[in-house]
Amino acid sequence: MLTPDKLTALHALFGDRLSTQAHACEAHGRDESFYPPAPPDAVLMAESEQDVLGAVACCHAERIPLIPFGAGTSLEGQVLAVQGGLSLDLTRMNAILRVDAADLTVTVQPGVTREQLNAALRDQGLFFPIDPGANATLGGMASTRASGTNAVRYGTLRENVLALRAVLPPGQVVRAGSRAKKSSAGYDLARLLVGSEGTLGVITELTLKVHPLPEHVAAATVTFPTVNAAVQTTIALIQCGVPIARCELLDAHAIRAVNAHDHLDLPEAPLLLLEFHGSPLAVQEQIRTVQELATELGGTAFQWAETPEARTRLWRARHHAYWSVLQQHPGCRCLTTDVCVPISHLADCVNTALQEAEAAGLPYFLVGHVGDGNFHVGYLIDPQRAEQLATAEALSHRLVQHALRLEGTCTGEHGIGLHKQAYLLEEAGEAAVATMRAIKAALDPHGVMNPGKVFAA
Amino acid sequence: MLTPDKLTALHALFGDRLSTQAHACEAHGRDESFYPPAPPDAVLMAESEQDVLGAVACCHAERIPLIPFGAGTSLEGQVLAVQGGLSLDLTRMNAILRVDAADLTVTVQPGVTREQLNAALRDQGLFFPIDPGANATLGGMASTRASGTNAVRYGTLRENVLALRAVLPPGQVVRAGSRAKKSSAGYDLARLLVGSEGTLGVITELTLKVHPLPEHVAAATVTFPTVNAAVQTTIALIQCGVPIARCELLDAHAIRAVNAHDHLDLPEAPLLLLEFHGSPLAVQEQIRTVQELATELGGTAFQWAETPEARTRLWRARHHAYWSVLQQHPGCRCLTTDVCVPISHLADCVNTALQEAEAAGLPYFLVGHVGDGNFHVGYLIDPQRAEQLATAEALSHRLVQHALRLEGTCTGEHGIGLHKQAYLLEEAGEAAVATMRAIKAALDPHGVMNPGKVFAA
Repeated sequence: MLTPDKLTALHALFGDRLSTQAHACEAHGRDESFYPPAPPDAVLMAESEQDVLGAVACCHAERIPLIPFGAGTSLEGQVLAVQGGLSLDLTRMNAILRVDAADLTVTVQPGVTREQLNAALRDQGLFFPIDPGANATLGGMASTRASGTNAVRYGTLRENVLALRAVLPPGQVVRAGSRAKKSSAGYDLARLLVGSEGTLGVITELTLKVHPLPEHVAAATVTFPTVNAAVQTTIALIQCGVPIARCELLDAHAIRAVNAHDHLDLPEAPLLLLEFHGSPLAVQEQIRTVQELATELGGTAFQWAETPEARTRLWRARHHAYWSVLQQHPGCRCLTTDVCVPISHLADCVNTALQEAEAAGLPYFLVGHVGDGNFHVGYLIDPQRAEQLATAEALSHRLVQHALRLEGTCTGEHGIGLHKQAYLLEEAGEAAVATMRAIKAALDPHGVMNPGKVFAA
Repeated sequence: MLTPDKLTALHALFGDRLSTQAHACEAHGRDESFYPPAPPDAVLMAESEQDVLGAVACCHAERIPLIPFGAGTSLEGQVLAVQGGLSLDLTRMNAILRVDAADLTVTVQPGVTREQLNAALRDQGLFFPIDPGANATLGGMASTRASGTNAVRYGTLRENVLALRAVLPPGQVVRAGSRAKKSSAGYDLARLLVGSEGTLGVITELTLKVHPLPEHVAAATVTFPTVNAAVQTTIALIQCGVPIARCELLDAHAIRAVNAHDHLDLPEAPLLLLEFHGSPLAVQEQIRTVQELATELGGTAFQWAETPEARTRLWRARHHAYWSVLQQHPGCRCLTTDVCVPISHLADCVNTALQEAEAAGLPYFLVGHVGDGNFHVGYLIDPQRAEQLATAEALSHRLVQHALRLEGTCTGEHGIGLHKQAYLLEEAGEAAVATMRAIKAALDPHGVMNPGKVFAA
């Protein structure tokens, strides 16, 4: 709780960039997770690194929880102010500072969204590939080590951050990395901050790799008799080394929902949604390989999205899957899993997940960045019915334990937040989590940076 | 200095795996840098993670400096026992634990060398691409975030470590990462340990990405009238997005030396040594592009190494460059720079480096992983003549400062060790180095892990 004198201190620093109005606090107390809102006591609309520096210094000195906030699209409660305090909204820091086309790098403020960046890059023949679906801010994406549909070819935020600036307690700007492609200069602070979910500092600038727009792009959908057949096709094409740009799975439940929401008429059966990037010749080669593999494994109804408009329509539908399913279950919220396993174990993991979901009887759907071995099962629950939440949690836990037995991870891309702290302990072990806590204590000795996330404060 | 009672404690733990014999200590007190030897007081030949655990626990409890040791091929003094203590030799921990061909991963002990790994992988149609020249251990390569000739296409140890096990003070095994391709599970401890030069813990196991042997490989040499023309060609081919597998520059001094050492008759002029990986068609496309670019910029005397034997001969010569030059200057040692800059600034950086070296009058040579913007100038100095060392240090320092102005790094791949600590401070700034120190103090509170490296103890 922010005491009146602490609020006065903040007001003196930030004037009307600071708000304690209920609507502002409520808007900053929720994300896309199933958690009930946890609003902060105040919201600061940061406009500069200087503002961030002031906020971190003040929160450190006054022991005020500080929660960085971007688009609010996190899925694990990362932005909830579970201990009150100050929500630091970075969306006004949305300048694209530099585009260095010759080096394929850009430098942006953390509030720039991925759609904003891509709109600015298009004229220069460039794009930023990482696409988690939501129009998240790049600062938020870095903080959760986000990935999404293009990661199978282009990697995640881990691979695409070259350098960053961040403000750390007690109130200092730290630079990490450079625009050079590689470096062995000391500890990799950039990679430490990427994925730290705002618990160590606030990212104020990011230098990212960008890529030339592919010479040729083709997208296709292929329908399969079973989810297993779609997964087996995925495994085969990854193991053959096809440099596919996107390889997404939707089960029949998800297809039914996106058909309704986006007015499509995709066959209501497991579907792979594929995209190919490269020279026309290279794309042709890839397509031929995939068609052969898919046909062998029962794939039918190849449909090509030839025009950019048709492709956009398909990908928009994919990105709407989560919302489309929720719309079909009014009043429900969704508990989403995020396991990621080595590709050779993907069929085992997906099949087990589906069997258990069927047996439990809750409505569910499955979508997945299956080319990476990463998929999401969403369990639909009525938040008023505790037993449904308990069932979904039990399913989620069993799925994580199975993924860990298969040498995978509890979270491919959503992060730990509030929800996966026990899973992190199971996955990494006590020594690793103690090591993370030791780093946290060293860099944020008062524990004010997004407290209660990643591990309990 | 190890006191007799501390030695007794170590002997009780390790029996004859511990040696205090002069020849063992001397062999573990030097690397390939220009530093005079600094032998440890004792050497432990570790045979298991249990040995490493015992050594870390004992050194932590007894305040004994502990220096992990692999092949001893570091170039910045990383393995020198500058405060005495225990050298922990990991070369007996050289088992290849698993090859998971279906997932393109391997799991190895830290003493496995890259040549050993590639010999074991060849039969399965796989290879580990990272090749720093020396037959280093993979533990050592991870510790310095090494890269080398193939990094332009396949990345560095940063991108190719999926998971690791390490022993950290006070004596605990930490697991980091998994075999899943991506993860957002907490702080990226794997990337924190990669590049930490043994100052945080001892890596006891590595899970690495491996790659299918390319369907087709072609290598070529092209001669240029000037180093600048070779660099301009490199810049053009990287900016065109040619997925070249290797792109190495040697100046005329280096060529002269390798011709003599490896009985070659390469034209004594700046040379690009190139390698192409892919389908026969893709390789042909790449070669055509590179020939056009190189010819436009004055490249002549294209020579093709068609057979594996001819390729091996060329690459062996490249790897011998450092030794070949030293052989031509008996009694000299070599001070080597390692700057890496964004590709658009590479010509500026190389040209400035050469002008300054020429003006200074010391013998020198230049080799470089120029596709990454990374190059090495080696200054040959007589260790008896202090003014030569001073001149080389001044040249090195000015080159680093220029590279930093060009938004690069002081070290692309060799690490900080003893030699680049002041450069690290210039590059990263005081706040970043203080953050690194805070992490070091949190994880190694007694300061026993490779003390005096990366930053002064």
